[in-house]
Amino acid sequence: MGMGATEQFAVGTDGAGLMAAIAPDLARIEQAMQADLATLASDTDALLAEVLRYGLFNGGKRIRPLLTVLCCRLCGGRDVDVVPLSIAFEYLHCATLFHDDVIDQALTRRGRPAVNVAFGETAAILAGDFLHARSMLLIGRGAGMQALEIFCGATTAMVDGEFLQLHNASNYNLAEADYFAVIMGKTARLIGATCEIGALVAGVATEEQQALRYYGLHLGCAFQIIDDLLDYLGDETKTGKSVGNDFREGKMTLPLIIAIGRAEEKDRERLLAMLTSVEQRSRGFAEASALIARYDGFTLARQKAETIIADALVRLRIFEQAAVQQEVAVLEGLAYYVLNRNK
Amino acid sequence: MGMGATEQFAVGTDGAGLMAAIAPDLARIEQAMQADLATLASDTDALLAEVLRYGLFNGGKRIRPLLTVLCCRLCGGRDVDVVPLSIAFEYLHCATLFHDDVIDQALTRRGRPAVNVAFGETAAILAGDFLHARSMLLIGRGAGMQALEIFCGATTAMVDGEFLQLHNASNYNLAEADYFAVIMGKTARLIGATCEIGALVAGVATEEQQALRYYGLHLGCAFQIIDDLLDYLGDETKTGKSVGNDFREGKMTLPLIIAIGRAEEKDRERLLAMLTSVEQRSRGFAEASALIARYDGFTLARQKAETIIADALVRLRIFEQAAVQQEVAVLEGLAYYVLNRNK
Repeated sequence: MGMGATEQFAVGTDGAGLMAAIAPDLARIEQAMQADLATLASDTDALLAEVLRYGLFNGGKRIRPLLTVLCCRLCGGRDVDVVPLSIAFEYLHCATLFHDDVIDQALTRRGRPAVNVAFGETAAILAGDFLHARSMLLIGRGAGMQALEIFCGATTAMVDGEFLQLHNASNYNLAEADYFAVIMGKTARLIGATCEIGALVAGVATEEQQALRYYGLHLGCAFQIIDDLLDYLGDETKTGKSVGNDFREGKMTLPLIIAIGRAEEKDRERLLAMLTSVEQRSRGFAEASALIARYDGFTLARQKAETIIADALVRLRIFEQAAVQQEVAVLEGLAYYVLNRNK
Repeated sequence: MGMGATEQFAVGTDGAGLMAAIAPDLARIEQAMQADLATLASDTDALLAEVLRYGLFNGGKRIRPLLTVLCCRLCGGRDVDVVPLSIAFEYLHCATLFHDDVIDQALTRRGRPAVNVAFGETAAILAGDFLHARSMLLIGRGAGMQALEIFCGATTAMVDGEFLQLHNASNYNLAEADYFAVIMGKTARLIGATCEIGALVAGVATEEQQALRYYGLHLGCAFQIIDDLLDYLGDETKTGKSVGNDFREGKMTLPLIIAIGRAEEKDRERLLAMLTSVEQRSRGFAEASALIARYDGFTLARQKAETIIADALVRLRIFEQAAVQQEVAVLEGLAYYVLNRNK
């Protein structure tokens, strides 16, 4: 997959090296979340506090706050300024998960009962609203108005992306551009905001801010493409999720869009015919996967993710100072990790 | 009901006089909402825009933004500064309604299908999240960080109040203080914030800001007490809502709490026995109402609301300048309207 170049980076692309490099920051972020919840506890209902604790400490990877902390440090900012507000991104992310699980009537999240199951839908919706408001406050208070504009813009874009996806639901002739509009809103804008706001807290010039925003947007897009690929090609024993959900639901993701665009008349008609029948979607996953593979849908989608990541990494080159090469290496490591993850 | 003193105010306490006095501001607020949605339309999914329009223009009374505009002008602030951000309070209010209607599985809202019915639960949850984020942005952008602190504080308090209510759900020995804690969080804090932020935008001294916050908190409490009274005593042809819902759900509101606190042993036991049985709650409304009336639960709850409003109005006395007496009169008129409303 052309990842040979990765050996040059200090942290490597294997999970273990990267994890060791980010562990101290993850511990700081965890501590900041605990401290914030402790502050809230005095004037928060005990049941609400319990729901928040359950939903927030669920084995999440804390990638979003980590990006904010890394980007701030990369730009010369101080941990003491950025760590307390970085948790806003985890709050917003978890709020989204609470609401998504209500919408999808999900039973589990990371192997445990989802918040809506453990505490009911009312608690899940309201606790999401609470985290939502709290996250906006942390960003405004800690990073100022410009950051709040970016943060709220990413939040409304997320909702907009979900609506676009609803809107596209039965459009089986979806263009790649439509797919990218959805994942930009649903996933990438928020990741872009994590990086950009880290830079803002450090108070850097526009060039650095834009470079990190670009990195984040692209990392987010690649993340979503790989996520969508794993829904076809993932190893269920590693991902913990069954494959084929997207096809069963008729969700148009990149491999399928590419294949439909490239397929010969007969095969395209076959794919479209399968998609328009709920019954065929539910038992046609193997056949659809074979057709997508025949037209290189998986390989081309993966190449697209790789190109996107390569573009993102080029923008990191402006950070040349020796003192920040560890942060650059971790951002590069995370980018390769996103490409190579199998779960 | 001791309302004889009201004749002295310019706008009077009859609905018509008050409505005429506030009509120009309501038109400004409506216009600002239309303008904001038009701004959003260019980068918002068409379906989302439709949901927002349907949910926002639903015949709502716009009391919250109106209070912000009135309080700002009362403090010498300019309409051009306050009207565009005042709509954040209507956005937040509507977001809460969208989510409440999902939680309660409500079928209608103001005589039309609720958003969750007209567009589905997914749309209702997501559109609520969108308005939530947009409201925070408008407040931060238009009124600054101190206002955002107050706004987010009111939002998290609202969730906290809902949880407190969940928590209290089967506690039939609830104290008045518990009831006030719930309505303070659920209703009053946000009304307090509408008034306080209006003052903040005008840039007044702490004394005026605190007086208006106090007025808003008390107005909100009285509003909720009257709302809870109407659930027992309301005329269904006027309120458009059936009576007895709270008792059927075992919800402990002020008249019932007062009656249980004052009742003789036998009657208290009878009320508690009814409350603990779903079946008795659903057919015991008339008997419960009679018991509450016997111990003056309704009269005393109403007196409490009147005292609260009287307290609030005393605080308005610091606004003595002749130029703002119209605003003072409208705030007084709204307070009496809250007490005297029958729908």
